[in-house]
Amino acid sequence: VKIALDAMGGDRAPAETVRGAVLAAQELDLEIALVGPGGVIEAELKKHATDRRISIVAAGDTIAMEEDRIVQAVRQRRDASINVATQMVRSGEAQAVVSAGNTGAVMASALFTLGRIPGNERPAIGTLLPYNAGRVFLIDAGANLDCRASQLVQFAEMGSVFMEKVVGIASPRVGLLNVGEEASKGNELIQEAYERLRESNLNFVGNVEGVNVHKGIAEVVVTDGFTGNIALKVGEGIADYILETVTGVIKSSPLFIGAAILLKPALKRALKRLQYEEYGGANLLGVNGIVVIAHGRSDALAVKNALRVAKRAAESGLLESIRTAFAAKSEPSPAAGL
Amino acid sequence: VKIALDAMGGDRAPAETVRGAVLAAQELDLEIALVGPGGVIEAELKKHATDRRISIVAAGDTIAMEEDRIVQAVRQRRDASINVATQMVRSGEAQAVVSAGNTGAVMASALFTLGRIPGNERPAIGTLLPYNAGRVFLIDAGANLDCRASQLVQFAEMGSVFMEKVVGIASPRVGLLNVGEEASKGNELIQEAYERLRESNLNFVGNVEGVNVHKGIAEVVVTDGFTGNIALKVGEGIADYILETVTGVIKSSPLFIGAAILLKPALKRALKRLQYEEYGGANLLGVNGIVVIAHGRSDALAVKNALRVAKRAAESGLLESIRTAFAAKSEPSPAAGL
Repeated sequence: VKIALDAMGGDRAPAETVRGAVLAAQELDLEIALVGPGGVIEAELKKHATDRRISIVAAGDTIAMEEDRIVQAVRQRRDASINVATQMVRSGEAQAVVSAGNTGAVMASALFTLGRIPGNERPAIGTLLPYNAGRVFLIDAGANLDCRASQLVQFAEMGSVFMEKVVGIASPRVGLLNVGEEASKGNELIQEAYERLRESNLNFVGNVEGVNVHKGIAEVVVTDGFTGNIALKVGEGIADYILETVTGVIKSSPLFIGAAILLKPALKRALKRLQYEEYGGANLLGVNGIVVIAHGRSDALAVKNALRVAKRAAESGLLESIRTAFAAKSEPSPAAGL
Repeated sequence: VKIALDAMGGDRAPAETVRGAVLAAQELDLEIALVGPGGVIEAELKKHATDRRISIVAAGDTIAMEEDRIVQAVRQRRDASINVATQMVRSGEAQAVVSAGNTGAVMASALFTLGRIPGNERPAIGTLLPYNAGRVFLIDAGANLDCRASQLVQFAEMGSVFMEKVVGIASPRVGLLNVGEEASKGNELIQEAYERLRESNLNFVGNVEGVNVHKGIAEVVVTDGFTGNIALKVGEGIADYILETVTGVIKSSPLFIGAAILLKPALKRALKRLQYEEYGGANLLGVNGIVVIAHGRSDALAVKNALRVAKRAAESGLLESIRTAFAAKSEPSPAAGL
């Protein structure tokens, strides 16, 4: 498998993206094309041991993390690293693209270059959350801020295929993120989605409350992108907050520091699964190609893990299964802008 | 100040509600009317030392936590404890009502019996979150699952008055819960609310991302009730999850247990602020009376703290200030059903 890595994407690019590629090439069985300005990438690459599985693909332009009018930028600047990377997937030179760049730019580039899978209304971002009770795939994590119920059903379908093909869970349980468990709960969108999911062929297990997401009641948790993004970010914030509070307590006394030194390695192991560095990237599903979006703050470890996620997805037959799932529907897809 | 406590509300009523009332009467300077079936309440009350500040007000009926057709139940069963309690506020016998019962029932009873403050479109639930960086008032935490932008502006107004009158923060900063900081971010509802808040007289500081809520960038965080409820519950779930994980690690080795024993009291102090038992109840704002909704799982400590919240609100002039804020608007309020 060959993966096109947007070497210029992310707050810590290109140093950490290149280092992540070097780590991935050593540990995982894959080829990586570093996409970006040749000179810059080469200079970074020289800091590491030579690896024949890593190549450089030149891209003259870069889209910054905090750029205005991102969609126009992606449309016009065809030589931007993210565009060159998605183009490699389109042409078959690479089997997946990974970027820690601006999420909107990655989505726009994927849509323009790869297009949607026939029958897909809107691509969505799915994030695999590794809880103790099992892995949970939250979809949509932020691609679509205003959704229709039919789109939520498609997110559920894509999430189910992902958990089945990539994670290996047969007939994954699908839950709808909601404010209560009863069928009558929720806003208008969620109530309509509930009815449609109940009538679908999916293994729909009903509503999942925010407080229960981590309990693994459902392997696929469906939500609109606005709520999904808020849920993910609030969870991230609360986790940071608790760890800060605990650290503050520990630092408040030498006695506590002694106790903490004993605990630290085990705590670190237990909690690291909560961190994005470990679980790698989110999957943009519904486009004609494997696209993995890594966290903007990704370090080399996070980049490596995003490359692993992309490799697994590329080898799993995920795309073909999503195509088959949508092809089975007779309903023609409405044209969707960005 | 006299507070009507729905003695039958909550999973652990009446034992814990009565015990909470006894604690509150001892520690706080207030009178409490325990509302519920006389015999049952009296039997509970006998387990504690006599306190002249606690009285019993008979109510022949009770609305269960998991009742169907809750709004109809509240409308028809006038002798239900929550209805008798809100009636006491309406008649001026009590200055506030506290209930750990079904949130929908408390809202319905408050709306039917107390009505809305003139000019208020929809009452909303505000929850005070006590973070290290300062207290944050999240509104709406679940009362209104489908909102209009004008309602979000009213939530911001009520939240500002609350933080000013009850918490004592002059000109509180108001933020809008959103998926990014830039003004252009968000779904349609949030984008429109952004514009209206920007044009308002409030101290609007822009969008607040989920990951930053606990940082105290804004003292009032405004959101629709669906998103607000999901955000609160996800935060609660992640906090539980981390504490479980940490406990699991500690229990995995006798060495760790030793270390943990040293740390435990300080950690407990630091983290207890995150728990609903400590921060008491949420405020239903926009109705003609002080209404505090405690967590359904409330124990005596949580009930006591909810009574404290109600007392503070009743003594603060909160209601009068919200009335003044809405009276200043010329716009007539549309009739709003439940």
